[in-house]
Amino acid sequence: MIKVGIIGATGYAGGELVRILLGHPEVKIIWYGSRSYIGEEYASVYRNMFELVEGRCLDDNLEELAQQADVIFTATPQGYLAGILTKELLAKTKVVDLSADYRIKDVATYEQWYGISHQSMELINEAVYGLCEINREQIKGARLIANPGCYPTCSTLAIYPLAKAGLIEMNTLIIDAKSGTSGAGRGAKVDNLYCEVNESIKAYGVASHRHTPEIEEQLSYASGEAVVLNFTPHLVPMNRGILITAYGTLKEKVSEEEIRSLYEEHYQQEKFVRLLPSGQCPETRWVKGSNYVDVNVKVDSRTNRVIMMGAMDNLVKGAAGQAVQNMNLIFGLPENMGLDLVPMFP
Amino acid sequence: MIKVGIIGATGYAGGELVRILLGHPEVKIIWYGSRSYIGEEYASVYRNMFELVEGRCLDDNLEELAQQADVIFTATPQGYLAGILTKELLAKTKVVDLSADYRIKDVATYEQWYGISHQSMELINEAVYGLCEINREQIKGARLIANPGCYPTCSTLAIYPLAKAGLIEMNTLIIDAKSGTSGAGRGAKVDNLYCEVNESIKAYGVASHRHTPEIEEQLSYASGEAVVLNFTPHLVPMNRGILITAYGTLKEKVSEEEIRSLYEEHYQQEKFVRLLPSGQCPETRWVKGSNYVDVNVKVDSRTNRVIMMGAMDNLVKGAAGQAVQNMNLIFGLPENMGLDLVPMFP
Amino acid sequence: MIKVGIIGATGYAGGELVRILLGHPEVKIIWYGSRSYIGEEYASVYRNMFELVEGRCLDDNLEELAQQADVIFTATPQGYLAGILTKELLAKTKVVDLSADYRIKDVATYEQWYGISHQSMELINEAVYGLCEINREQIKGARLIANPGCYPTCSTLAIYPLAKAGLIEMNTLIIDAKSGTSGAGRGAKVDNLYCEVNESIKAYGVASHRHTPEIEEQLSYASGEAVVLNFTPHLVPMNRGILITAYGTLKEKVSEEEIRSLYEEHYQQEKFVRLLPSGQCPETRWVKGSNYVDVNVKVDSRTNRVIMMGAMDNLVKGAAGQAVQNMNLIFGLPENMGLDLVPMFP
Amino acid sequence: MIKVGIIGATGYAGGELVRILLGHPEVKIIWYGSRSYIGEEYASVYRNMFELVEGRCLDDNLEELAQQADVIFTATPQGYLAGILTKELLAKTKVVDLSADYRIKDVATYEQWYGISHQSMELINEAVYGLCEINREQIKGARLIANPGCYPTCSTLAIYPLAKAGLIEMNTLIIDAKSGTSGAGRGAKVDNLYCEVNESIKAYGVASHRHTPEIEEQLSYASGEAVVLNFTPHLVPMNRGILITAYGTLKEKVSEEEIRSLYEEHYQQEKFVRLLPSGQCPETRWVKGSNYVDVNVKVDSRTNRVIMMGAMDNLVKGAAGQAVQNMNLIFGLPENMGLDLVPMFP
Repeated sequence: MIKVGIIGATGYAGGELVRILLGHPEVKIIWYGSRSYIGEEYASVYRNMFELVEGRCLDDNLEELAQQADVIFTATPQGYLAGILTKELLAKTKVVDLSADYRIKDVATYEQWYGISHQSMELINEAVYGLCEINREQIKGARLIANPGCYPTCSTLAIYPLAKAGLIEMNTLIIDAKSGTSGAGRGAKVDNLYCEVNESIKAYGVASHRHTPEIEEQLSYASGEAVVLNFTPHLVPMNRGILITAYGTLKEKVSEEEIRSLYEEHYQQEKFVRLLPSGQCPETRWVKGSNYVDVNVKVDSRTNRVIMMGAMDNLVKGAAGQAVQNMNLIFGLPENMGLDLVPMFP
Repeated sequence: MIKVGIIGATGYAGGELVRILLGHPEVKIIWYGSRSYIGEEYASVYRNMFELVEGRCLDDNLEELAQQADVIFTATPQGYLAGILTKELLAKTKVVDLSADYRIKDVATYEQWYGISHQSMELINEAVYGLCEINREQIKGARLIANPGCYPTCSTLAIYPLAKAGLIEMNTLIIDAKSGTSGAGRGAKVDNLYCEVNESIKAYGVASHRHTPEIEEQLSYASGEAVVLNFTPHLVPMNRGILITAYGTLKEKVSEEEIRSLYEEHYQQEKFVRLLPSGQCPETRWVKGSNYVDVNVKVDSRTNRVIMMGAMDNLVKGAAGQAVQNMNLIFGLPENMGLDLVPMFP
Repeated sequence: MIKVGIIGATGYAGGELVRILLGHPEVKIIWYGSRSYIGEEYASVYRNMFELVEGRCLDDNLEELAQQADVIFTATPQGYLAGILTKELLAKTKVVDLSADYRIKDVATYEQWYGISHQSMELINEAVYGLCEINREQIKGARLIANPGCYPTCSTLAIYPLAKAGLIEMNTLIIDAKSGTSGAGRGAKVDNLYCEVNESIKAYGVASHRHTPEIEEQLSYASGEAVVLNFTPHLVPMNRGILITAYGTLKEKVSEEEIRSLYEEHYQQEKFVRLLPSGQCPETRWVKGSNYVDVNVKVDSRTNRVIMMGAMDNLVKGAAGQAVQNMNLIFGLPENMGLDLVPMFP
Repeated sequence: MIKVGIIGATGYAGGELVRILLGHPEVKIIWYGSRSYIGEEYASVYRNMFELVEGRCLDDNLEELAQQADVIFTATPQGYLAGILTKELLAKTKVVDLSADYRIKDVATYEQWYGISHQSMELINEAVYGLCEINREQIKGARLIANPGCYPTCSTLAIYPLAKAGLIEMNTLIIDAKSGTSGAGRGAKVDNLYCEVNESIKAYGVASHRHTPEIEEQLSYASGEAVVLNFTPHLVPMNRGILITAYGTLKEKVSEEEIRSLYEEHYQQEKFVRLLPSGQCPETRWVKGSNYVDVNVKVDSRTNRVIMMGAMDNLVKGAAGQAVQNMNLIFGLPENMGLDLVPMFP
């Protein structure tokens, strides 16, 4: 049994980690870390876990945790892990970090977009960006995984085959994204109250959202060129789900079927990426609670653009599910172990 | 492997059966019956099942199905199964009926509330009312299970220990129930459109809902006396979930703790009934996607009434989950096989 | 023009007051009081008011306000107004209090349920309970109005004619109530976050909600006897709306039509109470944004109970709309001035 | 009093027309046309109108209606009005058409996108495109108004000043739009059921939505060049509201403040277009129930693009409100008469 510790277990991503790991046959959770609820029963914070989880919330003690746990998941605020992680700790345990601390290779870019200085930049190079479908082999040997952001996961997987094939003008890329409200976290803020979110939609972080450089970096690896793009997230009145609608100009005339073949090729072996039948648009209702990303493309011959679409559950493939997928790869387990979650509808 | 056929596989309860059975290690679905979608791929109707279900929808052919299947789940309109089921068919296969056809032992009562005449009343006595926590032993040997209605499941389990102990005046019972909209089915009706249901709540079927006599019958078995009660369901703008708030006058002064002990006793061995800690009210968010029923009681010394509360997922414990629980009992499998579904939150 | 001051203008009830008063032809708002947003533009807190409201939020200064305003609306926490209101202030201005401070005539009852000691009990007797349809004449000459709570307004109006006629056993009364989330206020609490409220329903304040004694007092006036009842509120995932389902045992056999005649008689002159056609249940979608209360009754001859139902918008008839109705009565304006709000659907 | 007839009075746009016109001091509705509900009381279809509307639904009789009404609003399926409207009818009455029949000047384009042949193309030239802020003067003398589509209204107003000023490369325009579900109409379709729409978001009509050529035509008038663009609508789980996020490449470096000055200039006299303060993104919650369009822009210097945003209520400014605004202009009434609707929040 793999002994797992979670730091930040009472946020929504932390709660989803617990939900998934409870169904994982090779895992035992030994540490429910939560600064806000130290000493309280975990099942009193997340009452869905009543009679399922016995433990109480513990303070964050990375030293102690590294001794006890085979792997630590950190679902913590930006900068937190970077401030305490060391090579010594990584010698004792594996870390899958759900924050953004090690996702961006260029420190200056990180510091500019996040507005904080990086406290352990010597670890950035060691960290593997845990987008399993792209970096599977490096993940297998890794000690430190930078678990991708929710928007970057969906965006990158929806765009990757076209970027890789060099078929789109990368500087024409525009990503218009929509997310459910669990992505905003469990903090008590007026803007996230039921009556503020319900019956409304808004854009936020326009031209300034922190996931922008993460997406740009990944797509630059795919395309082999520097990528600068527009990324606009929107808040949607629903609990879960991310939908990506991306636009790019085709370098030359390519048919939708040719592009779909490309996606087919890239993803036919991938259990968690589903290329939908021709003409079907991804919808978040069909992936809820599961680790799937549904993708599809539409070519508009009038404008010579391709519209790339992706839908997934932001808390699963966009956070906890992918984190477990990374854990499985690290420990040599079947990649889908504990992740055969059938999407729940309605 | 148990070969399973489903008639009515494209309704919400049918879809939920498929979701649950896909995760059941001893089951293989061999028949996706759906009159409305004959010949269409099941995964084109429920796109969450894309790449998970290969089959196409088939017409209803109970004869043929009885030959092939070890058990048939029928999620069909009232009166349908009663019109075609025979002892000959039951000699070949087991049937778990999610409709109300065999739930009520008194034919006159059935015909009065449902407004149809019963076509196979000779089978009513054989049918076992599949409320597993109450009728476990009879279910084990059964060929025909009348799977309980959603409201009756939640109501009966929330009230049962008090009724059984004879502590409440049964003729004072009032059940005020609230249900998510999946309970209204997948038929295309104006009243169930998004804009009609959203941002509204209403009572319906006041003093006339068909689940009333079913609840009365079950509580009369528990209490040993004829029960006539008020049952008022309400439609709530959410997908899943049933909440029961029931009121009854105590025959004599009993403390909340004494009543909780009674519930404790009844349910401590029951995996799927969770008696919440003292003072906590059941909420549907904590049981979504799972087979749990959360129950609790509150004594009001001012009025000498006890308020009995229950929350569950109407599609799981209120339909498909309980149906699978019945199947497990019939075939001698562990009762929770395929049902260890951790509630999904948020 | 009537000069109006609002204390607590940035809560949901305060915001609704502003929305309604902006359309009132005889009113000018001169004071947007809000301790939390002192100095900020009101329209930056409620951006729906952009280009409609020019003012900034001011501190609470009742002395100053009493000099300037003809009437003050207080949408403030319990105990706040009672702590600062005096006869001297009431000599200068009228007060319509949306808090509970002066609703309950018996101080001991108030202090027991609210857990605070009353700081100006000498004013309680002067205060008129502002349920306009019942106390219209006393309101006309009043200086201090205790604007009724949302649940008590809907409950009392739905039950009143039967209570007044002495047709129900008052000690059998059970009120099961359901409210939209704006009733929980605009405070930043985890329990009111979108993801916590959405897709869930729960009871709260079971056998202990503060509106209980208020309802009991009003119904005791109606029936002429002491009333002790059960009141159970529930939180519903929607912004606005209250639905009441109340149960009472009939003293003798009375037909639904007789009871409807009684309601007809009571409410036929009342613009804001609509007795629905026979058989139609009130639904909150039909009253949203308006000052209407829709009521109806159903007699259940099996149990000899009558089910009394009411639906209204908790922020309008349940708070701001009724407050304006009271203001109109105080100042001798047409009672519906500024309140001809057509319900918005969907 | 202006005598008004409505054809299609029981759709959502028709219902909103009734809501708004009931508050219009110079209007009397004389005809509630609805083929689906002939003979039924209008208030039994839209129960919010109980005690507010007396009339019954009538069949569509344009001849008769033209005799009786000063103006007819047609909220009818595509092609319906074009099949029956004549110059003779227009000699007797005014028509404000909420369908798309006369919005597009080029018949071939209309027939290609709508897939029907136009039955009265001789009237197309007479029809005035009723985007009041742009075509105010022509509307004043018009007999036939093509009331703009919901998406085109919001898109055009959000983009117009930049297009007019020639500051963006028009062939780079991408409009990503999001709409509430009332835009899908009141027809009983499985895809619009509560459980299908709730908790999900999807794109639809990708590269093929019928509002595309309408937007292109209006922006070509503004920019003086042919415009071909991408328009992608999305369905959002909420009742009302449209949000537009549009992207265009700037021809040269222009500051956000310069662009905002341009918008200021265009819209400072416009009551119903609100340019938000710098940095604030439009949100649909702030315009619900009102005739406002909130707009703003954001310049992204990294990509040299401008993001243009707009939010409005699809049923008001996107349908019924704008229709009434057009009526006011036709009859020489104050443009905002009956339209001073304060946005309702929450």
